[in-house]
Amino acid sequence: MRFSERVLAMQSSPVRRLLPYAEEARAKGKKIYPLNIGQPDIKTPPSFLKAIKDFSTDVIAYATSQGDNALRDAMSAYYAGFDIPLKREDIIVTAGGSEALLFAFMAICDPDDEVLIPEPFYANYNAFGGSVNVKVVPITTKPEEGFHLPPRKEIEALITPRTRGILVSNPGNPTGTIYTREEMDMLADLALKHDLYIIADEVYREFVYDGLKYTSFGHLPKIEDRVIIVDSVSKRYSACGARIGCIACRNKEFMAQVLKLAQGRLCVPTLEQVGATALYSTPKSYLEEVNKEYQARRNTLYSALKQMPGVVCAEPKGAFYVMVKLPVDDAEKFIIWMLQNFDINGETMMAAAGEGFYATPGMGKQEFRLAYVLNNEDIVKAMNILKQGLEAYPGRVEAAVAR
Amino acid sequence: MRFSERVLAMQSSPVRRLLPYAEEARAKGKKIYPLNIGQPDIKTPPSFLKAIKDFSTDVIAYATSQGDNALRDAMSAYYAGFDIPLKREDIIVTAGGSEALLFAFMAICDPDDEVLIPEPFYANYNAFGGSVNVKVVPITTKPEEGFHLPPRKEIEALITPRTRGILVSNPGNPTGTIYTREEMDMLADLALKHDLYIIADEVYREFVYDGLKYTSFGHLPKIEDRVIIVDSVSKRYSACGARIGCIACRNKEFMAQVLKLAQGRLCVPTLEQVGATALYSTPKSYLEEVNKEYQARRNTLYSALKQMPGVVCAEPKGAFYVMVKLPVDDAEKFIIWMLQNFDINGETMMAAAGEGFYATPGMGKQEFRLAYVLNNEDIVKAMNILKQGLEAYPGRVEAAVAR
Repeated sequence: MRFSERVLAMQSSPVRRLLPYAEEARAKGKKIYPLNIGQPDIKTPPSFLKAIKDFSTDVIAYATSQGDNALRDAMSAYYAGFDIPLKREDIIVTAGGSEALLFAFMAICDPDDEVLIPEPFYANYNAFGGSVNVKVVPITTKPEEGFHLPPRKEIEALITPRTRGILVSNPGNPTGTIYTREEMDMLADLALKHDLYIIADEVYREFVYDGLKYTSFGHLPKIEDRVIIVDSVSKRYSACGARIGCIACRNKEFMAQVLKLAQGRLCVPTLEQVGATALYSTPKSYLEEVNKEYQARRNTLYSALKQMPGVVCAEPKGAFYVMVKLPVDDAEKFIIWMLQNFDINGETMMAAAGEGFYATPGMGKQEFRLAYVLNNEDIVKAMNILKQGLEAYPGRVEAAVAR
Repeated sequence: MRFSERVLAMQSSPVRRLLPYAEEARAKGKKIYPLNIGQPDIKTPPSFLKAIKDFSTDVIAYATSQGDNALRDAMSAYYAGFDIPLKREDIIVTAGGSEALLFAFMAICDPDDEVLIPEPFYANYNAFGGSVNVKVVPITTKPEEGFHLPPRKEIEALITPRTRGILVSNPGNPTGTIYTREEMDMLADLALKHDLYIIADEVYREFVYDGLKYTSFGHLPKIEDRVIIVDSVSKRYSACGARIGCIACRNKEFMAQVLKLAQGRLCVPTLEQVGATALYSTPKSYLEEVNKEYQARRNTLYSALKQMPGVVCAEPKGAFYVMVKLPVDDAEKFIIWMLQNFDINGETMMAAAGEGFYATPGMGKQEFRLAYVLNNEDIVKAMNILKQGLEAYPGRVEAAVAR
């Protein structure tokens, strides 16, 4: 039987495709520190389950396609707290940030249209792009430069008549980079000059460290008709399995187009919306505690990485990931080797292979992504395992070579 | 700002786009019998909410991309009860039947590839097709022929080198038609001869009346590697707002491709899977009761329609819809007129305009779809309102004219 070119061209998820090796290792009794997936260990606010348990209905009926008004109002109030002016009607509830991204691509791109994305990027951007025939055009950024953007000229050179938008994750997954106001203004200027959308994936909005000031693309009024905000409760409230997010934009025509897409899939689940509405009433102290915890983890992780010979990485300033360049022949091989052949007292660690976060062929081969979603103690243990694993790995090279 | 051609070409949902007129009527104090949307009034089995309320976890974490094993096993056991051989690994859990359809289109079609669909069809087939640039090629069927398929020759004439599959809803939404075994064998032969997939939307599997024997496309072993079953708990267990469905196929390569799409969107919600797993343990007596209830409603509705002068419709044999050809100039105008200008003691009724269920331009203009999802008493009232509305409508024509 034949399959579509688009699906054949899709890669398996770099975050998930090595799971069979992990299962195999676990079956042999190994304990694995899972730094491969952005699944926080932080407790979900109990209000989520409580609201659902308090909810009662005889018929689990369709919700509205745009999402419950109570939830959209809660989201709107949340944005107001960040001085981001988004009203109920500027928001459509989606099945996680994932569906928001898919809708954004579908609404602005036809097949073979292009979207610029700084690489390394969240691997599923490629998956969504490929599944709807949008061409992802990478803006290459480097660990040595903290994954900040290249000069405007280099980005502008990538813009063609088929470019429809620029997609940025800020704070960045997998880089941990926070863009400066100057970088954001530069992208905004390019968007205005070339009539592009900015798709702003801001699901890590609260995960900003070292007292840095966070700017949302929703704060730039001159591009308010072309900023599409992609958001999610997954990381903010440690509710990845709720699959509740939103797409938000102040351009009413854009939202009318997205509504058609939303109507096609009818609605997102009723109960999850009830729970998510409650999440938005979580006291700010919860988010502050979470921020403090992640900053401590980041410190633990980064100081351990800095002490490993031949390892290159930039200090992550946000989100909860770090892209690490390793002194190895092939990071994916190294990850598999760690799962199959290395342990300390029956314990090993797991990361996500770097290549899947790049669109440029061959890039990221020496890199992996760590998600610091474990507690400090476990991170210390995992970093010790990594250090000793790197020393023992037969495919070790002298130092991370230039890409 | 520019939008994609694909989204601009999408129609608003024919089921949902007239809702503003209904809201307006309600705001004026009118009561509306909503026969426009397939939202059953039947109680969801309480096991759904109970299982979720009994569920407890500290972290609402990502589920696996293919879906919980417990749910997939429950689905597999359910299929075994129908003699449809589908194992756990042949099944991926989706966000309703909607996502299953989207995945099927993405996995087998590239842009401009074609899928044949008997029309009138579930309007969202057009939405899903359009959003991923799949061309929907209609196989026209007629109310006068009970919406059964035209001769093989006519269908074969529609097959081109770009045809990738045939999508059928059986029992049919919006037609209520059950295909005969001969029709199914004919489609299977065409699929084999022309190397096509059969996408079998069987979400109404239990909704078959008059003691008719139901055959699933999963019962035809000679095409087992090319049958893609789309399914959902929405109608079966009156759980539309759960958004749990599945895509199932015995072709392992096909399922491997779909898994990549599933990994892209990470997972469906954890809690809804817990609830849906419980639904599959619902005693058969529930489904038998539901079937009996819908058959009674069908009888009430159909006998009322038969007595209305100039109205043409086929007796629906399954699902819970009927496509009705009306003696009016324009069915959508008529629906709006009913909401704005007609009532009996402050009560009126609502249907879904027929044109949106056709791909052939101009077809269905005199038709609307009724969903008999209300109790018998309400259906009697709604049909009385319809009858008198048709008599009073200024755009009435002598009889439903030939299309």
